[in-house]
Amino acid sequence: MSLNQTVAHADLKAFIARCLGACGMPESDAATVAGLMAQADLMGQDGHGVFRLPMYIKRIHAGGMNMTPNFTRLHERPATALIDGDNGMGHLVMHHATELAMQKARGTGVAWVGARHSNHAGPASLYAMMPARENMIGLYLAVGSANHMPPWGGTDMLLSTNPIAVALPSRDFPPIVLDMATTVAAYGKVKTAAQRGEMMPEGWMIDRDGKPLTDPNRAADGFLLPIGGPKGYGLSLIFGILAGVLNGAAFGRDVVDFNADATSTTNTGHVILALDIAAFADPVKFRADIDDVWRQMKSSARMTGVDEIRLPGERLNKVTRDRTAQGIPIPAPLRETLADLARDLGVAAL
Amino acid sequence: MSLNQTVAHADLKAFIARCLGACGMPESDAATVAGLMAQADLMGQDGHGVFRLPMYIKRIHAGGMNMTPNFTRLHERPATALIDGDNGMGHLVMHHATELAMQKARGTGVAWVGARHSNHAGPASLYAMMPARENMIGLYLAVGSANHMPPWGGTDMLLSTNPIAVALPSRDFPPIVLDMATTVAAYGKVKTAAQRGEMMPEGWMIDRDGKPLTDPNRAADGFLLPIGGPKGYGLSLIFGILAGVLNGAAFGRDVVDFNADATSTTNTGHVILALDIAAFADPVKFRADIDDVWRQMKSSARMTGVDEIRLPGERLNKVTRDRTAQGIPIPAPLRETLADLARDLGVAAL
Repeated sequence: MSLNQTVAHADLKAFIARCLGACGMPESDAATVAGLMAQADLMGQDGHGVFRLPMYIKRIHAGGMNMTPNFTRLHERPATALIDGDNGMGHLVMHHATELAMQKARGTGVAWVGARHSNHAGPASLYAMMPARENMIGLYLAVGSANHMPPWGGTDMLLSTNPIAVALPSRDFPPIVLDMATTVAAYGKVKTAAQRGEMMPEGWMIDRDGKPLTDPNRAADGFLLPIGGPKGYGLSLIFGILAGVLNGAAFGRDVVDFNADATSTTNTGHVILALDIAAFADPVKFRADIDDVWRQMKSSARMTGVDEIRLPGERLNKVTRDRTAQGIPIPAPLRETLADLARDLGVAAL
Repeated sequence: MSLNQTVAHADLKAFIARCLGACGMPESDAATVAGLMAQADLMGQDGHGVFRLPMYIKRIHAGGMNMTPNFTRLHERPATALIDGDNGMGHLVMHHATELAMQKARGTGVAWVGARHSNHAGPASLYAMMPARENMIGLYLAVGSANHMPPWGGTDMLLSTNPIAVALPSRDFPPIVLDMATTVAAYGKVKTAAQRGEMMPEGWMIDRDGKPLTDPNRAADGFLLPIGGPKGYGLSLIFGILAGVLNGAAFGRDVVDFNADATSTTNTGHVILALDIAAFADPVKFRADIDDVWRQMKSSARMTGVDEIRLPGERLNKVTRDRTAQGIPIPAPLRETLADLARDLGVAAL
């Protein structure tokens, strides 16, 4: 690692693959998972990349994840499948599910592949973007890996930040990539604020009396707020049912908090939908049309104080370019944690 | 119509069908559209039912909608289709598209049918609920029929309230039906506030300086706010692209304000997705699982002052039961408008 504490994408990927290999993951699977995890860091999703590796490995060592899963198709139709992930790493399960969805969608036009007995799979955008690289549209839903939200008006933690990601290919502009939690803030942002000793803005969380909660150290006394109040509650509920209940995966009271419990099977559920653009339009024209969407939005008159209109995926694309050129910054505390991990696993450090 | 100003669902449906028939719509098509419009009123979606009939008929008389459309499939795959609605009424186009999606999903497991050259089709839930009556899950997206929102940070009206509806069948509890605009308030709510002489709560609209706009008579000076700020902007953008751009339907600057312009072809775009539950799970078990979701949410501890936890679709179901038993209330001004309409068309009044 260079002095300015950045690491090249290829080096980060190789490091993650070494660590997973040392945990008994077969080489090609380790390369797949490491590629996706390092891509999360490359895209600026710092809370979902190598930052998670120590936790994943803690779970692997505790017997909470299966390093040699045998994926099975519990149900299959021409345009659908339900995959049992055999408690494998979520990245591996959803990479497999997304490949299958794309293969099916090439013939049928659209495919919907669900997964159960999976695990945390990193940022939602990873899987939505796979179809978008092949003239398809990707849409991903998941049950979040810990409940941080009650139903609207309630105080029991029955729902998660259940995210949606959608990726749309473009021509000259970056792809449009929406990747959002159904809560105002993802829980990772609360943890980051606590680490930095910062207060949270009003609107992220409320306490059990409905009052704004702005001290992230008091996060256990309250819960995340959904976007648009009852609307975000509805979206979280629906996405959770589609990714969880329909797949026979955990939802509601059955969700295992994977931060607090490293051994219990999480039975995480996800969905990937792949839509073949050629089933609706000439892909070349569609990509030009997405460029036109960029131009329309970008050229809107702006409110006072707004320097630029942004589109979803714009920051992700810029960070990816910057980090491809300059490397991925690894903060000192994480670097130390990863050095300890390498020592414990007997692999070369980053 | 009875003295208490309610009308039976069957009578309302028959009245709407008479009016459409008098405008040259073939009898079976008029029955289909009237059934859907009256169902909107029965479900309590008052702004999307018979209330819209005078405006539709104004458009029909102005030559802005085609009473004898010829639907064509511009593209088709086993699990997808793109329908050209030939500028027919949106209800007719989307009823046709949803029937097709359900038929395809029975074989392939999932189907995605898009439409272009359609028109306003009433409440989104109408189409999401059709698959839910046959052990399927329905998901509907549309480009709204007038732009009321700029991109986040902008002031040009390039986006609409682009809604999503999802319906999930249950066993003993009502189906879960989410039907929501991606804005905090639908524009119809602003118009209702203006009619009633009420102020709007902060959070519905802002003016061009970003200040809260609470006087609905000043609505033209501002715009609707998306749920969750940039997140709701992202959802509106994505749903608009999927329902509009992908289908070759109007989006952004091309959207025709159907309230202001009765003659221009709106080229409205919609999407219906049908998912066959049996492709993932035993439908009997799934419906029981949805009942369990109801029970989990309902039994959550509640915040002070909250009398009950509600689920999406609960009010719709209650209103449907009430109005089935007691009739559909028609406010006096609307009743007068409909009486005028009947006279103009030479059909029997409601």
